[in-house]
Amino acid sequence: MKITVINPNSSESMTEHIHAELERIKRPETELVVLCTEGAPPAIQSATDVALATPPLLELVRRANRDKSDAVIIACFSDPGLEAAREQSDILVLGIQETSVHVACMLGHRYSILTPLKARIASKEQDVRRFKVESALASVRALGMTVAETDADPMRTKARVLDVARQAMEVDGAEVMVLGCAGMIGYAKDVEKELGIIIIDPTTVAFKICESFVELGVHHCKKGLYATPLPH
Amino acid sequence: MKITVINPNSSESMTEHIHAELERIKRPETELVVLCTEGAPPAIQSATDVALATPPLLELVRRANRDKSDAVIIACFSDPGLEAAREQSDILVLGIQETSVHVACMLGHRYSILTPLKARIASKEQDVRRFKVESALASVRALGMTVAETDADPMRTKARVLDVARQAMEVDGAEVMVLGCAGMIGYAKDVEKELGIIIIDPTTVAFKICESFVELGVHHCKKGLYATPLPH
Amino acid sequence: MKITVINPNSSESMTEHIHAELERIKRPETELVVLCTEGAPPAIQSATDVALATPPLLELVRRANRDKSDAVIIACFSDPGLEAAREQSDILVLGIQETSVHVACMLGHRYSILTPLKARIASKEQDVRRFKVESALASVRALGMTVAETDADPMRTKARVLDVARQAMEVDGAEVMVLGCAGMIGYAKDVEKELGIIIIDPTTVAFKICESFVELGVHHCKKGLYATPLPH
Amino acid sequence: MKITVINPNSSESMTEHIHAELERIKRPETELVVLCTEGAPPAIQSATDVALATPPLLELVRRANRDKSDAVIIACFSDPGLEAAREQSDILVLGIQETSVHVACMLGHRYSILTPLKARIASKEQDVRRFKVESALASVRALGMTVAETDADPMRTKARVLDVARQAMEVDGAEVMVLGCAGMIGYAKDVEKELGIIIIDPTTVAFKICESFVELGVHHCKKGLYATPLPH
Amino acid sequence: MKITVINPNSSESMTEHIHAELERIKRPETELVVLCTEGAPPAIQSATDVALATPPLLELVRRANRDKSDAVIIACFSDPGLEAAREQSDILVLGIQETSVHVACMLGHRYSILTPLKARIASKEQDVRRFKVESALASVRALGMTVAETDADPMRTKARVLDVARQAMEVDGAEVMVLGCAGMIGYAKDVEKELGIIIIDPTTVAFKICESFVELGVHHCKKGLYATPLPH
Amino acid sequence: MKITVINPNSSESMTEHIHAELERIKRPETELVVLCTEGAPPAIQSATDVALATPPLLELVRRANRDKSDAVIIACFSDPGLEAAREQSDILVLGIQETSVHVACMLGHRYSILTPLKARIASKEQDVRRFKVESALASVRALGMTVAETDADPMRTKARVLDVARQAMEVDGAEVMVLGCAGMIGYAKDVEKELGIIIIDPTTVAFKICESFVELGVHHCKKGLYATPLPH
Repeated sequence: MKITVINPNSSESMTEHIHAELERIKRPETELVVLCTEGAPPAIQSATDVALATPPLLELVRRANRDKSDAVIIACFSDPGLEAAREQSDILVLGIQETSVHVACMLGHRYSILTPLKARIASKEQDVRRFKVESALASVRALGMTVAETDADPMRTKARVLDVARQAMEVDGAEVMVLGCAGMIGYAKDVEKELGIIIIDPTTVAFKICESFVELGVHHCKKGLYATPLPH
Repeated sequence: MKITVINPNSSESMTEHIHAELERIKRPETELVVLCTEGAPPAIQSATDVALATPPLLELVRRANRDKSDAVIIACFSDPGLEAAREQSDILVLGIQETSVHVACMLGHRYSILTPLKARIASKEQDVRRFKVESALASVRALGMTVAETDADPMRTKARVLDVARQAMEVDGAEVMVLGCAGMIGYAKDVEKELGIIIIDPTTVAFKICESFVELGVHHCKKGLYATPLPH
Repeated sequence: MKITVINPNSSESMTEHIHAELERIKRPETELVVLCTEGAPPAIQSATDVALATPPLLELVRRANRDKSDAVIIACFSDPGLEAAREQSDILVLGIQETSVHVACMLGHRYSILTPLKARIASKEQDVRRFKVESALASVRALGMTVAETDADPMRTKARVLDVARQAMEVDGAEVMVLGCAGMIGYAKDVEKELGIIIIDPTTVAFKICESFVELGVHHCKKGLYATPLPH
Repeated sequence: MKITVINPNSSESMTEHIHAELERIKRPETELVVLCTEGAPPAIQSATDVALATPPLLELVRRANRDKSDAVIIACFSDPGLEAAREQSDILVLGIQETSVHVACMLGHRYSILTPLKARIASKEQDVRRFKVESALASVRALGMTVAETDADPMRTKARVLDVARQAMEVDGAEVMVLGCAGMIGYAKDVEKELGIIIIDPTTVAFKICESFVELGVHHCKKGLYATPLPH
Repeated sequence: MKITVINPNSSESMTEHIHAELERIKRPETELVVLCTEGAPPAIQSATDVALATPPLLELVRRANRDKSDAVIIACFSDPGLEAAREQSDILVLGIQETSVHVACMLGHRYSILTPLKARIASKEQDVRRFKVESALASVRALGMTVAETDADPMRTKARVLDVARQAMEVDGAEVMVLGCAGMIGYAKDVEKELGIIIIDPTTVAFKICESFVELGVHHCKKGLYATPLPH
Repeated sequence: MKITVINPNSSESMTEHIHAELERIKRPETELVVLCTEGAPPAIQSATDVALATPPLLELVRRANRDKSDAVIIACFSDPGLEAAREQSDILVLGIQETSVHVACMLGHRYSILTPLKARIASKEQDVRRFKVESALASVRALGMTVAETDADPMRTKARVLDVARQAMEVDGAEVMVLGCAGMIGYAKDVEKELGIIIIDPTTVAFKICESFVELGVHHCKKGLYATPLPH
């Protein structure tokens, strides 16, 4: 099978990072294509970034359809353009947030989402409603660090991830944590061990679910929310 | 006060139509600017259209801020780019769907949304969750006609609007109907008279609410969901 | 247009206060009538007060209909008798709580209601369900001061409003505060400036929305929840 | 024990009817007082009727407290003045709607409420939210007959009750029916037998629950929603 | 009337304790049978315990039906096997959790459940959804003591019950506390007096409600969720 | 990897059927063990059947843990004993209903569950709340045929599946159908083709998701809802 993973920002280094990580976990027989979205912002940190990233992202989705991919994964936790991408695609399209919050629901009573900045909590709460899994949400909590700060100070980042995950667990009743930012993922195993909580890395989880869906031959419904638009 | 109304599609004729309608109802002292979104699709009928319309729309929002407008209205029932526009704007931004569903809640027990095509019902249901007014929703119902068909056959359109509004009222318990398409608005008064139900025209309602908000000096909060994005 | 504002308690001084405030913000062409409810309790601080205020309030609503008012506003945050008043009225009736919580929903992700006393939090939570906007509620928080105390000690009141608004914002995620008591309103601008949060004054917001609705010619539906009662 | 049942309307005949019915089912040792609310409307069929009935009703509640009753039941399906009555009372106050919908929840998966007129469906839906049992509601359905018509035509009434209960069961999935009008109660046993559904008569159910609560010594909490109002 | 109370664990001493307590509060004419579930675990503290207790419990339910009992009460706060017991029974079956949370809803704005151990909070939250009363839930809070510890240290238990009830009241807004463990019940009256909150003892409340239901002749619906299973 | 699939009923033929089906779709390197639950009822069609099947099922779960399986799947749409099985297991345990309804959420706006008999609709609605995915549920609909009838009359079964799926799609707005009974699965492809809707076969979907989860190394959280029970 052939899976196209689109990094919806224009960062080459992040694209390479995603590629390396997925290369490591993909099944041998899976053909992996990882694309960088030229013309998109260098990172997706706002609704504005989502808006600017989506048109070039849709081009890549259409290309993946033409290139006989079996599925597309949008590899950014905001799931930018997910609905439009499904409209433009006859092949399966998965978003890593939507996929990972549903997986979180299967692994414990309630889940929390961990996001870098407090100002983005509201946006994640909106997404939880968009994906209709608000009944199982324990909380959205923020590290209180920018992505740049998480890159610059691994010690502090790890301490914050541990601290915030502990609060989500003890105060909010979370049993599963969904990491809403790539920069946090390196600390997952240590935090799992320390707290006994489950940590979800959205990108790898979505990739493995995607392999399963392709094997099963399932894709999104093309009759309603994701119907191919009529031509103008 | 100066209000900029953005028609987020590229149709000059629809822009003129909105202009004429609002010119008729605006207060004498209100300065009205109505803009057409060049580079956007000619109509907004899908998530793809929303995605393609938003980047040029954001340009117009920024222009309205520079041009000392007091508020911006996005005049399309999908409220395309509403969150991003609020991020980009220090002045008030209103979407006509968000505004009109809240007004609907103030006028009766439950409301229904009337949309042209069945395939868009799911999208409207998603929007109702996006605006957090699902507790008062009676139903989303479709005319089963394209926008072009509603233009071409006024008799049938009127009959369908009446018929579907009646079902929303009698079967779903709606007391207020929100018209999710400009083409239906000409029939509102007749349907109100015939059924005793309230019909909301989102564009005019949002415009009048906008005049009130400007007088009050209120605008959206810039600290959370709509915070100005940090520069990359 | 002519708008009748009913203060549903018997306090002449509060009625005059409301009158003065609305006189200041009304449009020049709006005729403003502000009525005091003789026979009602001097303040509305309980379900009992609501019960005792409603019969004389309904008399005033009927009078406003006879006197060719275009709309009635019930100017108390408990929205006493709102449903009955709509039954008794062919003209628009607005409650200041219902109106202001919907406006709050349009201006930010979540809103909080600020109420004087802890014992009234439950009542406000009930009202939020009555108006079907619970999905956007961040919290109801109390100043922990009686109305008399807020009048007697402006310094402490201001400090409490600031403190409680900050908690609503930082702990509960509120982006908009609805002030559930007239005594707090004088501090709104300072708190807005300090916190960057939006503060809603229900009376003035409802008045401006009312002017818009009268201009639009909309009123509540008379076919269901607010149908004119059959004679006994 | 002594239980005061207040018929919150001014109909002597209905008061006597309630008295006779409860006399038949009360325990021998229970002292039963049934009061008619002078000054209230002759029937409670609107929010206006509720508003007019509540002040004299509160007088009777206070009298029951003075007269050493152990509990008060408000015997009208609108539960008029329930919150205010609890504020005014140190002894238990029960409403027949609140009590019966909770009992309905204990006896089957979902319940429906049967009400005389279509125009009152919205009001019952509001009450279901007021009592926070909306998650178990199957539907509110109307007979489409006035109370007078149900009195005048028993054959048609019985046929309608059977028919509407069947729809609630087969279409809406109700397993329990709550009869929202005294006039329907005579047909309950026949309908239960024919459909295998459970029929709840709110007045008798609330009376028996009340006897149990008095035996248990429980009453409503006086610290929050039902706190005794501070004097003005 | 004859009521069979089943203690679904195999503890003879707890069975005797329940028997003694109910003997004290039952009406003189009620015949009380209290059964211990041989073959069940000695206590019900997990889903595993529920699973192991249910088959022998169902035997006792069938015996109660054969023995002409009028009703069965499952006297464990997990309501083990409640749905299956209702399938197996033509006579009324009540669970003490389901009954007591509905009673809690009738006595105050919101209720909290108090449970011994933090690890069981999630399970109680699941039960609240099973019984569809999540809209009125303030919180589930844990004592942080095992059942054995509550038995061994009454002073500390009482202090913890008081402390946790106070938090439920002040932080979560609870007006009614449902005690989710027999070991806490002895402290109810003191806590009620100190806090002014209402404390519900599930076993006694369910027993008294059961007496009322038998008097009324109501039982659960046998047509849907609790239909008698078809033979294999 | 080694996956143990437990058919929680005692039917050898159904166990073989499941085995054959999964053998066909498993990855070559996956070791598949399919177990029949001796001592369980021959089919799981009621809460009673669930109760009787769970104790022997838990034995098999423990055996799978001892036998170094990587995961357990409970292959019955009622997900019998899922919570207890997770308590008893350090390895991943999946239920096919929980897994498939979450997958359904990822593939379309709303999903419906198709169940053989009308009497089991309520039970499926309860399960949807148990798994916290009620916000995305379109409906539960019944074929109106017993499992035996679906086996005996394939033509009628296929016609009914098509008819009911069409109603779920057109009346309820479902975009994805979850088949709640093994007997319906043979018709999935034809129905998908005819309606353009997505059909989910819970067993195969859960198996493929399980392979992914084992690859990812994720399992359920053992700290809260599924904590290993303390010994008695």
